[in-house]
Amino acid sequence: MKRPLTEEKVFKDPVHNYIHVQDTIIWRLINTEEFQRLRRIRQLGTSYLTFHGAEHSRFSHSLGVYEITRRIISQFERSGYKDWISEERLLTLCAALLHDLGHGPFSHSIEEAFAMNHEDWTCRIILENTEITRILQDVEADFPRKVASVIAKTYEHEIVVNLVSSPLDADRMDYLLRDAYYTGVNYGTIDIDRILRMLRPYNGRVVVKESGMHAIEDYLMSRYQMYWQVYFHPVTRSSEIILRQIFRRAKELLLQDYPFRFMIEPLPDLFRGEVTVEQYLLLDEALVQTAFMQWTLEEDELLSDLCSRFIHRKLYKYVEIENLDADTIGEIRRSFAAAGLNAEYDLEIDFPSDLPYDVFRPGEGFDNKQILLLDREDNLREISEVSDIVRSISGIHRGRYHLYFPQDKLQKALPQLPPSIARIFAK
Amino acid sequence: MKRPLTEEKVFKDPVHNYIHVQDTIIWRLINTEEFQRLRRIRQLGTSYLTFHGAEHSRFSHSLGVYEITRRIISQFERSGYKDWISEERLLTLCAALLHDLGHGPFSHSIEEAFAMNHEDWTCRIILENTEITRILQDVEADFPRKVASVIAKTYEHEIVVNLVSSPLDADRMDYLLRDAYYTGVNYGTIDIDRILRMLRPYNGRVVVKESGMHAIEDYLMSRYQMYWQVYFHPVTRSSEIILRQIFRRAKELLLQDYPFRFMIEPLPDLFRGEVTVEQYLLLDEALVQTAFMQWTLEEDELLSDLCSRFIHRKLYKYVEIENLDADTIGEIRRSFAAAGLNAEYDLEIDFPSDLPYDVFRPGEGFDNKQILLLDREDNLREISEVSDIVRSISGIHRGRYHLYFPQDKLQKALPQLPPSIARIFAK
Amino acid sequence: MKRPLTEEKVFKDPVHNYIHVQDTIIWRLINTEEFQRLRRIRQLGTSYLTFHGAEHSRFSHSLGVYEITRRIISQFERSGYKDWISEERLLTLCAALLHDLGHGPFSHSIEEAFAMNHEDWTCRIILENTEITRILQDVEADFPRKVASVIAKTYEHEIVVNLVSSPLDADRMDYLLRDAYYTGVNYGTIDIDRILRMLRPYNGRVVVKESGMHAIEDYLMSRYQMYWQVYFHPVTRSSEIILRQIFRRAKELLLQDYPFRFMIEPLPDLFRGEVTVEQYLLLDEALVQTAFMQWTLEEDELLSDLCSRFIHRKLYKYVEIENLDADTIGEIRRSFAAAGLNAEYDLEIDFPSDLPYDVFRPGEGFDNKQILLLDREDNLREISEVSDIVRSISGIHRGRYHLYFPQDKLQKALPQLPPSIARIFAK
Amino acid sequence: MKRPLTEEKVFKDPVHNYIHVQDTIIWRLINTEEFQRLRRIRQLGTSYLTFHGAEHSRFSHSLGVYEITRRIISQFERSGYKDWISEERLLTLCAALLHDLGHGPFSHSIEEAFAMNHEDWTCRIILENTEITRILQDVEADFPRKVASVIAKTYEHEIVVNLVSSPLDADRMDYLLRDAYYTGVNYGTIDIDRILRMLRPYNGRVVVKESGMHAIEDYLMSRYQMYWQVYFHPVTRSSEIILRQIFRRAKELLLQDYPFRFMIEPLPDLFRGEVTVEQYLLLDEALVQTAFMQWTLEEDELLSDLCSRFIHRKLYKYVEIENLDADTIGEIRRSFAAAGLNAEYDLEIDFPSDLPYDVFRPGEGFDNKQILLLDREDNLREISEVSDIVRSISGIHRGRYHLYFPQDKLQKALPQLPPSIARIFAK
Repeated sequence: MKRPLTEEKVFKDPVHNYIHVQDTIIWRLINTEEFQRLRRIRQLGTSYLTFHGAEHSRFSHSLGVYEITRRIISQFERSGYKDWISEERLLTLCAALLHDLGHGPFSHSIEEAFAMNHEDWTCRIILENTEITRILQDVEADFPRKVASVIAKTYEHEIVVNLVSSPLDADRMDYLLRDAYYTGVNYGTIDIDRILRMLRPYNGRVVVKESGMHAIEDYLMSRYQMYWQVYFHPVTRSSEIILRQIFRRAKELLLQDYPFRFMIEPLPDLFRGEVTVEQYLLLDEALVQTAFMQWTLEEDELLSDLCSRFIHRKLYKYVEIENLDADTIGEIRRSFAAAGLNAEYDLEIDFPSDLPYDVFRPGEGFDNKQILLLDREDNLREISEVSDIVRSISGIHRGRYHLYFPQDKLQKALPQLPPSIARIFAK
Repeated sequence: MKRPLTEEKVFKDPVHNYIHVQDTIIWRLINTEEFQRLRRIRQLGTSYLTFHGAEHSRFSHSLGVYEITRRIISQFERSGYKDWISEERLLTLCAALLHDLGHGPFSHSIEEAFAMNHEDWTCRIILENTEITRILQDVEADFPRKVASVIAKTYEHEIVVNLVSSPLDADRMDYLLRDAYYTGVNYGTIDIDRILRMLRPYNGRVVVKESGMHAIEDYLMSRYQMYWQVYFHPVTRSSEIILRQIFRRAKELLLQDYPFRFMIEPLPDLFRGEVTVEQYLLLDEALVQTAFMQWTLEEDELLSDLCSRFIHRKLYKYVEIENLDADTIGEIRRSFAAAGLNAEYDLEIDFPSDLPYDVFRPGEGFDNKQILLLDREDNLREISEVSDIVRSISGIHRGRYHLYFPQDKLQKALPQLPPSIARIFAK
Repeated sequence: MKRPLTEEKVFKDPVHNYIHVQDTIIWRLINTEEFQRLRRIRQLGTSYLTFHGAEHSRFSHSLGVYEITRRIISQFERSGYKDWISEERLLTLCAALLHDLGHGPFSHSIEEAFAMNHEDWTCRIILENTEITRILQDVEADFPRKVASVIAKTYEHEIVVNLVSSPLDADRMDYLLRDAYYTGVNYGTIDIDRILRMLRPYNGRVVVKESGMHAIEDYLMSRYQMYWQVYFHPVTRSSEIILRQIFRRAKELLLQDYPFRFMIEPLPDLFRGEVTVEQYLLLDEALVQTAFMQWTLEEDELLSDLCSRFIHRKLYKYVEIENLDADTIGEIRRSFAAAGLNAEYDLEIDFPSDLPYDVFRPGEGFDNKQILLLDREDNLREISEVSDIVRSISGIHRGRYHLYFPQDKLQKALPQLPPSIARIFAK
Repeated sequence: MKRPLTEEKVFKDPVHNYIHVQDTIIWRLINTEEFQRLRRIRQLGTSYLTFHGAEHSRFSHSLGVYEITRRIISQFERSGYKDWISEERLLTLCAALLHDLGHGPFSHSIEEAFAMNHEDWTCRIILENTEITRILQDVEADFPRKVASVIAKTYEHEIVVNLVSSPLDADRMDYLLRDAYYTGVNYGTIDIDRILRMLRPYNGRVVVKESGMHAIEDYLMSRYQMYWQVYFHPVTRSSEIILRQIFRRAKELLLQDYPFRFMIEPLPDLFRGEVTVEQYLLLDEALVQTAFMQWTLEEDELLSDLCSRFIHRKLYKYVEIENLDADTIGEIRRSFAAAGLNAEYDLEIDFPSDLPYDVFRPGEGFDNKQILLLDREDNLREISEVSDIVRSISGIHRGRYHLYFPQDKLQKALPQLPPSIARIFAK
């Protein structure tokens, strides 16, 4: 069952031109229900409300990650690098293809709202007797466990884990290129061919030939720009906030036995934290959007208002503030309540830099978060030791407080707010 | 209310780089519920099942059509062409922006299934007291009617109608570029700047300066290639067929009072042909997909099988046949029935060239389907008189019969089929 | 000496991103004097006077042809096609790289002016003891002869000849892409990856898998458009005409022992048809342009005027005429002479379609000018049998007569011309 | 004579798609001998020896600078910014178009070799009765002086000077884009549309709207990368060094009355520092290359060797050294001499960061080298105050010593060098 396809299959892809499938197993995995479900999960969550082109799915991203991994391995094999373990080719490709399998609808928001983790779900889907599990077992009985352990970063051969997950992994390279392509933002145009040529397997990890330093600098700058231009865009943050508020409100209502005009499986179990794998696989963004659309007609005003905002894109406005302490926050919330606003729902405070995105910060944390350069004498150095640019970026702690609020409601309440508070929102 | 915005607003767009909004009315129209709904309707229906990048929405296409129209008009005004009526600028822009407003989910398929027409819906949404209607009335009381009449091609000033709808209109130019971009197919890369520079308003219609002939040839070749490579792709046709079968089956069941495990507003009224504008606006692709996903669990095997096929992308296979007469079709259907297959659902016959797509065919039909060249002495000639290439394309009546069927079911029934029929599907 | 490089070398290339060199021999060939000379020969001759971006050299084109050939062969080998002879890899790559080695400055014009042939020169440079010869001999004594015979299309293994020279060869693919890139004209954007995947070695020639037909149609349309938009552009033709007139005049003067103010080796021998290989290698476009620049100061008015026109881009104007017979031509020339114009130099008649460019015309001539499609049952069919588009293009005999003339001189002579003649040029 | 063209003319340009010419004066200036000469001067000097695509000329760059300036002004006028002086439109366009007119062949190298300055030559060509001068006088008698004073940065209206020359001027924007396009290096892909939309005329200078900060960061990063990847590339430096050595040697020989086998006007006067404008206009890269080619046959071994190296691209090799003091340099030179090498010609020391390229360094020097951001309250701030990234780049003083030498000669002399010196070159 490890056999190659008799003829290579291709997918037309705007980013990589073609995705090349050469193994029967990969072809079968792509055609499973579980993998096809990724077509119904957007790669960038609510970013399409900011960048109308960003409707691309995790399906296409997953194919892209697979393709980049395939190219890296194919180059490792062509060059005959001795630190690469060629028996691990298929395992690495499967892990690369499947690494995002567990993402739910609007995943970062849903993960925050229900304290879930998409990697756990990926592993469960791989292991718990799905179509995926059965295909992987065709390779060998233990293969599903191996794939899951690569994703959980516990697999014995570090080089495989490193290829699938590191600061220079195929995941990051694909999403930079793909998100740049679909948003139309120019900043993600990294020279991926050059980067790929510069990668070397070395002592259980993927390192970079020293002469590739400028390409890596450029890659890190692209990431930096994409984070601030796209991933942290305040309009996207606004929509994520509303999304989380909808989940919060719907859960409150459910636990209060509110009689929903519309409810759909498996949302109740999701809200109660009791979904099975089978139920989880029913979840997609169509279902969530449909629920929201129907809830615009619910009697609970808060829920219906939030859903209208999300569906019709009447998002919260925001103001930026340089500094904000706990006292001021308390004061704002109190005066909001006094002015008849909802102190919890009508104000959200966001400080983008503490998001779970992984801007590269050398020196902080584990080895495998670092990018290492390999010089001609086979010495390794962490890139920020060598590159002034990388050192400069790494030190930057950018970010400002953003206060999000419903402009229409606030406008009405403005006369009731103390002038010092009103001034903040009057900008 | 015709006033310009104090500062131009832009949307980042991968195809046109930026969409420039300069009028308050345009800005307000974009922010209506009805226009935002177009985000939830894909531009290319089920093509994303063939080209995974093709997830782009009618929202982005509509902005693109608006932008191209804006550029054409701005060039007409800069050049001071006397055949352009500058008072009609805002009307033309509104009609360009709104021309696709009435598209429903998977619109071509739904139109066929329920004998509806998206242009009628566009006009109804513009006229029947929606947010759109009220904003247009802010220009002048009669403005909604004017916009609708441009879309219905009955407006008094022919040049406006021609700009919004003709073989060289902004609609076609945007979709070629956009569909090529999102599918990743190279064929749609027309030189739009050059085409725009060659357009002239002349006697109530938009014609082309003769020296632009090669650019038009290239544009028509791109259309030709896009039709055969993308729009008529057999995998897309297969998914459209299944989609229509689902609608057909669900309607049958509804009319038979089948007890649906899951049903959602406004599908019953849609199936009965009784939807109001308000209900119609609830329809989007998320709702349709959610219904299909839930119906995979219905007891009716035909419905649940069709929905599984669509949702999990287990589509029908096809064979191509050069010639096919009514007798043979009858024979195939009869032997299908005899072999225990469903003679209606398990076989669909498709002849792509008779689809409602408008490949350019000079000489057939109305004036305003023709592209006219304007020479230096102000003579008009239809392009195929001048261009050998266009004449060649126009004469081509390509197309073959495609038979679509469920491969797994057919495989089982194969021994029961007469050899002459079995041979057709054994290819 | 057939050994691979210890580490692959790359050239950054805007068209193919990187050119990959993997063999010592190829690397050494690129670094010879003779190959470096191609940097000083433009790929598109005088087209830079029409398209200012078209300054690219035969050096970059030759690298591109090599790179495409390398990719084709590498795919043949990966797929293990039995009709490919893997021993011929290096020979094929050398022939692909060197196939343009014999081009002189402004080669098509110089070939016409002095009845030379660049392929003969390529073979002579390969065979007559140059740096190239010596490197090829390092492979085996007979290797220079083999390479030359591939270029002369006499090599015993037809598949090698076919790869280097056929209607779908790497030469054509590279120049379409490259000329489109550097001129900025969009029409040359063929999907080269798809074409390459569709090629198959079959019975001594390279054929195309049937499912690649649309990609080939698109490729032929691109060629068609590039010919008419770029290669036959009347402004380029005008500059080529002046160039040939300069050569003609300088040769006349030399044979008359005219005392040139400036002359430079090896032009006199070139004009007399007596150049050696060593002399030929001194020829480049810098030398020719420098001679022309200096000749702007010659006493011979005709020569200095022609050189001024070329150097300062004061080209001939042209008029287009549908039909033109020998009688009319005679009449025009006579009245030119009578009006004091130079009947030979002040009028050039050009009919672009009879240029030595090879628009694809099935049915005319040799087998190896045809593109063959291979279907699933291994039948071969010539593409125009299958493709309506290709059949349409093939029948087209476009072209009009263009009369080129010095506008300033003609303007003065106009009153002396008979009205019927004057009218032709007054357009 | 300030009249617009009756119909806009365009040049096809790969970088800006089309260059739009709307004024008769601009059209006529482009068609002068002096401006056409820029076709024969490469934009990037000897960089084509490193990046084979970089054959683009100062002609195309000058058109590009004109086009960007035209777009900036057209936006200033459309937005009606009061700090823009619309009477200065034509003057600004002429200065933008002509600003590079005085560049000689391989200009940076020739400027260093003969202590010349291309801006002086630009002004002389504009003022000293050339075709250019006469056309400019058609606008008004004083117009040539005005154009020259804009280029010399002394014109009375600072906004005009600032538009033509500042850290965000059209010159820099065009060369980043163009050099990236022709070399194929990805780093220069700035979002020029966005930058242009962010520019504002303000108090005599062009500033940037604050919300454009990220686009400017990206622009400065692109410049940084282009400097290190392209402009300071060691292979290019090697060829520039050889070029300057050729000029040095040829001048020495001329002053010693060496009997040149080949000499051409106006090189002798150039070497003696006595060229007139008329002579200067004869200079182009074809002439220089032709002289070098002919000099490969000179008897003076040093000159012929240097010329061979340049023409046949057998460049100097280099080693990089972190630190290098005057003593060590002296020691190296002495041991070179002792080992029979040419202590002057066989060793060149280069420290790239001290080149005359203008990496942006805030705080150093004049106002008009700074980029200023304009916030909503009309406050100006220098960008590095606001942007951490810019502050980081600005502090970087990168650069290492590079020693260039003829590898073949050095190899032979190696045994004669002291081990401490030999070790440096043995890397």
